[in-house]
Amino acid sequence: MLTTDPFDDDKLREECGIFGVYDTEGASAMVALGLHALQHRGQEAAGITSFDEHDFHTHRAMGHVAGNFDREEIIGGLVGRCAIGHVRYSTTGETSLRNVQPLYADLATGGFAIAHNGNISNAMTLRRDLVRRGSIFQSTSDTEVIIHLVATSGYRTLLDRLIDALKRVEGAYSLLCLTTEGMIACRDPLGIRPLVMGKLGDTIIFASETVALDIVGAEFIRSVEPGELVVVRGTDIQSHKPFIPISQRPCIFEHVYFSRPDSIVEGISVYSVRKAIGAELARENGVDVDYVIPVPDSGTPAAIGYAEAAKIPFELGIIRSHYVGRTFIQPGDGVRHLGVKLKHNANRNLVAGKRIVLIDDSIVRGTTSLKIVQMMREAGAAEVHMRIASPPTMNSCFYGVDTPERSKLLASRMDVEEMRQFIQADSLAFLSIDGLYRALGEDSRHADKPQYCDACFTGDYPTTLTDHEAHEASDLMMLGEQKLA
Amino acid sequence: MLTTDPFDDDKLREECGIFGVYDTEGASAMVALGLHALQHRGQEAAGITSFDEHDFHTHRAMGHVAGNFDREEIIGGLVGRCAIGHVRYSTTGETSLRNVQPLYADLATGGFAIAHNGNISNAMTLRRDLVRRGSIFQSTSDTEVIIHLVATSGYRTLLDRLIDALKRVEGAYSLLCLTTEGMIACRDPLGIRPLVMGKLGDTIIFASETVALDIVGAEFIRSVEPGELVVVRGTDIQSHKPFIPISQRPCIFEHVYFSRPDSIVEGISVYSVRKAIGAELARENGVDVDYVIPVPDSGTPAAIGYAEAAKIPFELGIIRSHYVGRTFIQPGDGVRHLGVKLKHNANRNLVAGKRIVLIDDSIVRGTTSLKIVQMMREAGAAEVHMRIASPPTMNSCFYGVDTPERSKLLASRMDVEEMRQFIQADSLAFLSIDGLYRALGEDSRHADKPQYCDACFTGDYPTTLTDHEAHEASDLMMLGEQKLA
Amino acid sequence: MLTTDPFDDDKLREECGIFGVYDTEGASAMVALGLHALQHRGQEAAGITSFDEHDFHTHRAMGHVAGNFDREEIIGGLVGRCAIGHVRYSTTGETSLRNVQPLYADLATGGFAIAHNGNISNAMTLRRDLVRRGSIFQSTSDTEVIIHLVATSGYRTLLDRLIDALKRVEGAYSLLCLTTEGMIACRDPLGIRPLVMGKLGDTIIFASETVALDIVGAEFIRSVEPGELVVVRGTDIQSHKPFIPISQRPCIFEHVYFSRPDSIVEGISVYSVRKAIGAELARENGVDVDYVIPVPDSGTPAAIGYAEAAKIPFELGIIRSHYVGRTFIQPGDGVRHLGVKLKHNANRNLVAGKRIVLIDDSIVRGTTSLKIVQMMREAGAAEVHMRIASPPTMNSCFYGVDTPERSKLLASRMDVEEMRQFIQADSLAFLSIDGLYRALGEDSRHADKPQYCDACFTGDYPTTLTDHEAHEASDLMMLGEQKLA
Amino acid sequence: MLTTDPFDDDKLREECGIFGVYDTEGASAMVALGLHALQHRGQEAAGITSFDEHDFHTHRAMGHVAGNFDREEIIGGLVGRCAIGHVRYSTTGETSLRNVQPLYADLATGGFAIAHNGNISNAMTLRRDLVRRGSIFQSTSDTEVIIHLVATSGYRTLLDRLIDALKRVEGAYSLLCLTTEGMIACRDPLGIRPLVMGKLGDTIIFASETVALDIVGAEFIRSVEPGELVVVRGTDIQSHKPFIPISQRPCIFEHVYFSRPDSIVEGISVYSVRKAIGAELARENGVDVDYVIPVPDSGTPAAIGYAEAAKIPFELGIIRSHYVGRTFIQPGDGVRHLGVKLKHNANRNLVAGKRIVLIDDSIVRGTTSLKIVQMMREAGAAEVHMRIASPPTMNSCFYGVDTPERSKLLASRMDVEEMRQFIQADSLAFLSIDGLYRALGEDSRHADKPQYCDACFTGDYPTTLTDHEAHEASDLMMLGEQKLA
Repeated sequence: MLTTDPFDDDKLREECGIFGVYDTEGASAMVALGLHALQHRGQEAAGITSFDEHDFHTHRAMGHVAGNFDREEIIGGLVGRCAIGHVRYSTTGETSLRNVQPLYADLATGGFAIAHNGNISNAMTLRRDLVRRGSIFQSTSDTEVIIHLVATSGYRTLLDRLIDALKRVEGAYSLLCLTTEGMIACRDPLGIRPLVMGKLGDTIIFASETVALDIVGAEFIRSVEPGELVVVRGTDIQSHKPFIPISQRPCIFEHVYFSRPDSIVEGISVYSVRKAIGAELARENGVDVDYVIPVPDSGTPAAIGYAEAAKIPFELGIIRSHYVGRTFIQPGDGVRHLGVKLKHNANRNLVAGKRIVLIDDSIVRGTTSLKIVQMMREAGAAEVHMRIASPPTMNSCFYGVDTPERSKLLASRMDVEEMRQFIQADSLAFLSIDGLYRALGEDSRHADKPQYCDACFTGDYPTTLTDHEAHEASDLMMLGEQKLA
Repeated sequence: MLTTDPFDDDKLREECGIFGVYDTEGASAMVALGLHALQHRGQEAAGITSFDEHDFHTHRAMGHVAGNFDREEIIGGLVGRCAIGHVRYSTTGETSLRNVQPLYADLATGGFAIAHNGNISNAMTLRRDLVRRGSIFQSTSDTEVIIHLVATSGYRTLLDRLIDALKRVEGAYSLLCLTTEGMIACRDPLGIRPLVMGKLGDTIIFASETVALDIVGAEFIRSVEPGELVVVRGTDIQSHKPFIPISQRPCIFEHVYFSRPDSIVEGISVYSVRKAIGAELARENGVDVDYVIPVPDSGTPAAIGYAEAAKIPFELGIIRSHYVGRTFIQPGDGVRHLGVKLKHNANRNLVAGKRIVLIDDSIVRGTTSLKIVQMMREAGAAEVHMRIASPPTMNSCFYGVDTPERSKLLASRMDVEEMRQFIQADSLAFLSIDGLYRALGEDSRHADKPQYCDACFTGDYPTTLTDHEAHEASDLMMLGEQKLA
Repeated sequence: MLTTDPFDDDKLREECGIFGVYDTEGASAMVALGLHALQHRGQEAAGITSFDEHDFHTHRAMGHVAGNFDREEIIGGLVGRCAIGHVRYSTTGETSLRNVQPLYADLATGGFAIAHNGNISNAMTLRRDLVRRGSIFQSTSDTEVIIHLVATSGYRTLLDRLIDALKRVEGAYSLLCLTTEGMIACRDPLGIRPLVMGKLGDTIIFASETVALDIVGAEFIRSVEPGELVVVRGTDIQSHKPFIPISQRPCIFEHVYFSRPDSIVEGISVYSVRKAIGAELARENGVDVDYVIPVPDSGTPAAIGYAEAAKIPFELGIIRSHYVGRTFIQPGDGVRHLGVKLKHNANRNLVAGKRIVLIDDSIVRGTTSLKIVQMMREAGAAEVHMRIASPPTMNSCFYGVDTPERSKLLASRMDVEEMRQFIQADSLAFLSIDGLYRALGEDSRHADKPQYCDACFTGDYPTTLTDHEAHEASDLMMLGEQKLA
Repeated sequence: MLTTDPFDDDKLREECGIFGVYDTEGASAMVALGLHALQHRGQEAAGITSFDEHDFHTHRAMGHVAGNFDREEIIGGLVGRCAIGHVRYSTTGETSLRNVQPLYADLATGGFAIAHNGNISNAMTLRRDLVRRGSIFQSTSDTEVIIHLVATSGYRTLLDRLIDALKRVEGAYSLLCLTTEGMIACRDPLGIRPLVMGKLGDTIIFASETVALDIVGAEFIRSVEPGELVVVRGTDIQSHKPFIPISQRPCIFEHVYFSRPDSIVEGISVYSVRKAIGAELARENGVDVDYVIPVPDSGTPAAIGYAEAAKIPFELGIIRSHYVGRTFIQPGDGVRHLGVKLKHNANRNLVAGKRIVLIDDSIVRGTTSLKIVQMMREAGAAEVHMRIASPPTMNSCFYGVDTPERSKLLASRMDVEEMRQFIQADSLAFLSIDGLYRALGEDSRHADKPQYCDACFTGDYPTTLTDHEAHEASDLMMLGEQKLA
């Protein structure tokens, strides 16, 4: 009953999860476990870098953590008491092993490995400048810009170089850096992407979500704060806040969909937020039906909340397969809605003749919603209503979430009634933006100074978007670029 | 929210699923889809054989259907308008490709491929006789015995040879046979394992469960009857019933756990049976708690039924990961209950301080139940009760289900109170056998002539168990056997 | 400077080599070495079966011995003090792992593994009969016929069953059989394919050629005699000769091309035979040139013999690459004779302006000869003469050698002058059949009772060719056969 | 009958071969052929980079050219009319894909790919400086130093930047550079490693040896001169000589062993040089024997020359296997000299009772020579003499040849008589250094100004050896370096 769905084309996708362990035996085995618990944040590739007081050891692989980092021959080679790891969904650039993190560089200050969750929104512009001054990039990853800024910084210590570098980048970043001297965890001044700190005995652990602390039995200490660098060196833990303080704007979509329901994000239980969302949804847009049916699995907590608030039975009207796969060969014309059926099947006996409301977390392109509504009708449902546990998703994300171009977002092209017709539901309603803030325990959204980054719903971006505005930059960079056959 | 759980050591496991398509374009692509929908019945290996009016084409692979049979280069080679397929969990013999079905033989009557769900309980005895007469076995599979009985039968037509062979075997079998002349589907006289028939236009389809009809959009016609052979040849469909009629005894555990909740088994909705089981359980063994919590995913329908009947909130107190993997390297002593945590995590914020009842489908070894109870206590639950949606599992199955030896079954060694202590629950109760029959719509179990095969609960086996009784036979066969390095 | 050339389409090819070891530690490691030394007899696949007094262990792989059987994880699994192995070139049937030898069967007398060099010329006819009586074949290999004949024989002991089986087969076979009781080596009554026996301490070794004894440091004892079965059991070695004695007819082409020059075949040094062939060739068909140039590597010993006899300098006018590969993509029109150049290059500086005679072992299709003559002309040779170290190859082999259909053999379509024009040489001559017998130490060929099987040159086949004559049999067998996708 | 031997531990090894094609269809297919012909110069890995007027395309692979670059899916992706390629033997650093060439960088001037044969002898020193200034290295290859020097050069055009970079490096380099504007071929001022230029129609081709021109049917134009940069752009070919002229010192070992016998190196036929070496050797150190026997294949041309000069029969007393493999499991004590026997076998029938002289190209560690002498004695040779076609190899090479440490070179530890005893020969003699120069057509070596780099024989290195002298530099670089698991 996880939130994230590994093979759904019609969802927004978190691009990364990170996990770090400082000073324990079996550090890389622990990182592998932590990454496994963060697998919903990125299924395309994974990597771990360890440090054994003398050498850095790295292994990166396409695919899941399980199957790659659960083997003794791999983990056994990742020697050392400190390690960081990364799971990754995808990039704007090519999908190849050289873009898989942690990235590593031999700097004048010694070896330096970095794992990054987020997206640098002026990366192309910075990259062009760095190349002009003689830097050579190994990847098309925005993260590499940070490394070159560190490498060419005029400061002497690694920490000063890193701060110098971070002051030049825009956008979202939760970072874990592993150096010959220790581990540095940091978060951008807005705190867009999450990062938490825990401990297990004397071992310090950093993770994108608390579920990754749970899997290793670690205790949650606190979130790394927006704009904070936590430096762990031996038994010493220091906090640095070198940026001009500004109001934080953590990503609101972590609560709606990205994070696992059993995680605590910014101090709040994701499961309870989602149940509260369901209750708000029932209050704002109730409908008279026989059953409340979740679109599994991401709609389930909101559906439970909705059913409770509306006092309508919660039923499993859609059964989800655990065995994913989306490339099956279409056998012929007889087989309809194949894509959705590879994952979902109507519980036909239950829904036949019944009025139902489906609860889903969001609508992106709308193609899956249409197929699910049709599948329920073919199974004999008398009425099919749809309620969405978030406001309409109208804008692209530039902070580390894979969103389709704006024009592909159904809500950017249609109003709610048009969307209802498109997905062929009897009724359709979205949660209001204030309803969403209420579910998070706020009175309402503070329009002048929003408590969260909700740009995907509101278009109110908390940073400048340098690369996006200077789009031609990326075109220039393409000339003569290398493709790996 | 499927019933079957791909990597749980502590569950009984269905050993196979079968699917056949007669006379359509893209037959093997359709079989691949059907097998994908039956994947919960066997995750270890899969195979498809097609016939193109001249040649038979076979591909077998270790692993899932997705990833093996979703590729054009494989499906494109499985030419022909008729095909059968098989998913497999495991065998008593070695796990190697030569045991993966469909099995195939060039007989004097032409090519013959067979896919089998079930287990022949006198296979070793028959095999020894066949080898003495000069038959050479390619596999250690019990299914191959059927092929050699067909090959050496004195009858002339393939159908007569097959009937002759089946009259000599004991045990459970649902079979699909593909020959140069047509397709034969049959089920043993007791009807232990399921087999249904559907159609999509003029195409005839056979499948272990109705969900596999759903995925290809086919219409359910009827179950193949116990003791029936359905022969499809061109547009002609014939039914043969060559066996002495006896009362049917279909497997009751299909309803408890094996089949998907969205399947219709022997005419009954599995989901509604499981909800009824939950309600029976609440009535038989209610307990005063704050939340009803399913052990996901197999306990979920029963938990919904229990919560409804008991009027206690249904909550997701355990979150299940979609990303399986059980071989992670243990990092050190700090990490407790690793195995269970790779799959399940406590929704800590929800259960802290609460009294809960966990609903699970069955207890096999009890090791997982213990870890889940402990995990809930560590998450702060005030009381942890356990209710099981079936009677105690006390006996091995010899009909195609992977059960541990009798001595490993917790219920064969302990009474309920001892089991409660073992799993450290505050209370433990199982559904009664009559409660289970009531949930299936019966008044009670008819002890003299039971309506189902419930040997795993009652020890009342519906057939003789020749090989089990003559255990020495299997020892003899081992001498000089080949191992594939 | 081996005789056999792994990637030349324009050569006859030996189909198999076999090697067996009786009773020593590390038996399978020794078999791997022996097979490596026999690799020139078959490069497509290899297999080893060992017996550890309880179980048989088999590994088969497509590809070379090195790279498959040089790894501890493979050899370590092939436990036991006795083992047999096989290298294979190809079959008339499909090329798949199930045809790779040793073949194995569980018989009523216990486990039985067999490795076969040769070809059964009535295999299809026997197979059809066996299938009619209920035998099920696993492969398309002719060797499997022998196993089924053994399995269904009415005799009691394995040895009697094997003799019974061999009396029913026609054609060429050198066999190694591994049973629970010992090892049996045998050779068909004509002794068409070679098989020698050696020892290393108390260990008995069988091999297709003496070079495989050399690699393990074993001492050559004698050839297994035509029509002999050597049975090794414990320390006991027995010789059985159950067949009616007839004159032997070993394959003459082993001396011309198949065997390695450092082997002793039927008591004669292959290298010295080839040098004698070169000398005969110089005497029969001398030519006035500047250099004698071998077509490497198979023409080299004959070229040395020719140069010595003719008192003309031996020079390396063609340099052969060790790095094989025949599938390179043709870049465009400019690149001529690409196929031959992947392997051979003219030593341009040497041959420019010179009159040369090229010495090659045989002409099959003639395509390579043409390209080599052209390459020498393009390199500037003034005259290019060709001398062939065997008579014209005019007939197919049915005894385990891969020959093109008769119509593809250049010598079956053209006389010598036409062939000369085809390959564009200034002159062309072949060794006479009597010249070849003289080089082997005979006075001449005894036409009424030839000392060798020379059917490829003379068309005088020493056995009936049942399958070849009843060609329709193979067509019947094809119906409904299984293809592995 | 190639010179280089893919799996002999006891040979010096050329580290690289390079090949480039400018402006033709199918450029990368042509590069693949060229690299295949240069495979003897490096068997560990290969790579090709092409440019299609917009993008660069690269594929690199461990292993041979055949098997990697002969597949349409690879070559088809290497689009463009210009391409360069590289085969590589090994590195001082780790052996991993990131060290495989061509290396590529996105520079401010556009894409830049480079393939390098040779070794930069001040690479570590330059690398340390570059890292201090912020350059980040992707590999441990010395070649990457050149790229960073180009990237950070103060000059504007790529050609000026490259010249600036090359003026800072010491050592041996033959380079091919592919840029968005054209191709640049260059050779260090001493011309240590070879590089030739050819054409096929209007297409310009560069290659390490002329055999690579032969395979594609190209015409040899001339060698790239020491200290020359040849710039090809459109139809324009320019020659630049920016370095202060010094006397050339091409590598003498190319003639002794590295180059193929059918190559023309610095205008001289390698085959004829080797025959002349054999003749010199016979004159300098004749011996009364029955047969002259080459150690195949590198000793063969010298043996032919020796036999001719000494009027003693040339015979194949050692037969070499084409099927390499050196990791076979040792079966037990009985098998002696396994390593050498995997490759060489005595032609026992020939040598028994005979006095022989073995001709080999060089002695490195001497271990193989010892085993070959022993093998000949075990085969019954009456006397075994050894003659070596070069002077004693006493010094390491720092210019792109893989040599063992000086202390492992037999000739650095022993005089000739001690070496004779070590290899157990009846007599041993080496060619004199002046004899070697005579075979190359010189009157003698000019000690004040040697015509060749012969440092491996004489210790007279033509450049300073900065890194070697400042050995601590490399230690510093090791700290915190990344290992790829």
